[in-house]
Amino acid sequence: MERFYRRDFINTLSGVRNAHLLGTLSYKKVPNLGLFNSVTHIGATPPHLGFIMRPLTVPRQTYHNIKAQGHFTLNQVTLGTYQQAHQASAKYEVDEPEFEAVGLTPYFSETHRAPYVAESPIQIGLELAEEHHIKANGALFIVGKVVEIRLQSHLIADDGHIRMDAAQAVGVAGLDHYYRPEPIAQLPYPRPGQEDKILKPKNN
Amino acid sequence: MERFYRRDFINTLSGVRNAHLLGTLSYKKVPNLGLFNSVTHIGATPPHLGFIMRPLTVPRQTYHNIKAQGHFTLNQVTLGTYQQAHQASAKYEVDEPEFEAVGLTPYFSETHRAPYVAESPIQIGLELAEEHHIKANGALFIVGKVVEIRLQSHLIADDGHIRMDAAQAVGVAGLDHYYRPEPIAQLPYPRPGQEDKILKPKNN
Repeated sequence: MERFYRRDFINTLSGVRNAHLLGTLSYKKVPNLGLFNSVTHIGATPPHLGFIMRPLTVPRQTYHNIKAQGHFTLNQVTLGTYQQAHQASAKYEVDEPEFEAVGLTPYFSETHRAPYVAESPIQIGLELAEEHHIKANGALFIVGKVVEIRLQSHLIADDGHIRMDAAQAVGVAGLDHYYRPEPIAQLPYPRPGQEDKILKPKNN
Repeated sequence: MERFYRRDFINTLSGVRNAHLLGTLSYKKVPNLGLFNSVTHIGATPPHLGFIMRPLTVPRQTYHNIKAQGHFTLNQVTLGTYQQAHQASAKYEVDEPEFEAVGLTPYFSETHRAPYVAESPIQIGLELAEEHHIKANGALFIVGKVVEIRLQSHLIADDGHIRMDAAQAVGVAGLDHYYRPEPIAQLPYPRPGQEDKILKPKNN
C-alpha cells in the first residue's frame, strides 16, 4: 500500500473516538494545547483515564509539560470548536501561544494548575499517575487520575450518563475525519436468558 | 454520588468509542465473544491496536483464551448487530456457546485461529503482543499486532480511510448508550500560519 493510504487505513481501523484538547502549562507558564482521540476509560473508582502518546522520536511539548508539572486537562471538542482544535494540532514552535493562535481561551480553576479550554463544555482536570512504554513502536500509554470535573449539570442525564449529543461533542477517526455522535438507543443490563428480547437485525 | 450514577457518569466522561466484539477460541474449541469499546490505535507501522481489560477480580474468559491461544479478533459492531453484541456481554457460563445464544455466526479464516463474527463488516485478526498492568486499579492494557484484516473494498475511501457511516458502525458511551457516527467534515493537514482559514464557530 502507498504510505499515506496505508496510514489513513490503519488509523481509522479502530473507529471513531471523541476528540479532546489536552491542556498543559510550560515551565515558562505558556499554556499549550494538543489534540488527542485516544482517551479511554480505565476505571470509575478511583476515576482514571488513559491515552496514547506517540513515540518520542521528536520533541513533544505536551509530554514534556505533563512530566514537568504533573498536571494536565482534557477538554471535549465540539461542533463549535473542532476546526480550532484541528488547527491546534499543527506543529507550532515551542512556547508559541497556541490558544491565541487558534482562537481559544485558557481558563485556570482555583484548584488545578493546568489550563482548561474555556469554550469546552466538558473539562477534566488530571494528575499524571502512570506511563507505560509500548514496546511495539515506542508509543506511551499515559494514565491520569481525574481530580476535577467541570461541566454544566444539564449535560448529565438522570441516570448519570453525560449526554454527548447535548454537549455537541465530536469524534474523529484517523487524523482528519470528524463525526458527531447521533444517539440510537440505551439498552438494558444484559443477562443470560434474555436472548428472545433481542429484536431481529434490520441491516445484516 | 450514588454508586450507579457515579459509575455511569465517570464511564461516559471520555465519550463515545466504536464498539467491537472480541472473538476468542477456548481450549475446548468453543468460540467466545466479549464486547469492548476501548479499542485504540497505537501505530500503523507495524499495525497495532490496544484495549483495556477490566481487573481480573473475577474469571474473564476473554483474557484466559487470549493468553492460552495467543490470538483474538476484533469485529466492528453495527446498526444491525448492536443488540446481539450488547447481549453477548451478559455473564454466560464458561464454554456456553455465546455466538449461538445471541444469534451471531463464527467464521474462521484459513490463516487465523480465532473466530471472526461473520456478520461484521470490519474484521481484524490479531496476535497478543504485550500486556501492561495498570497499577491504579488492576486493569490491563492489552496490545495486539494486526495480522489479518477482512473488509469489503467499498468501505475504503479513495484516501484509504474506512467509511464508518457506510459500514453502519456504532459506538457506545459508558455501558449501554449507543450512538452512530454522522460524518461532518474532513479537514486539511494543519500547519502554523493557516489560522485565518478557520471558520468562525457557530455554536460557542
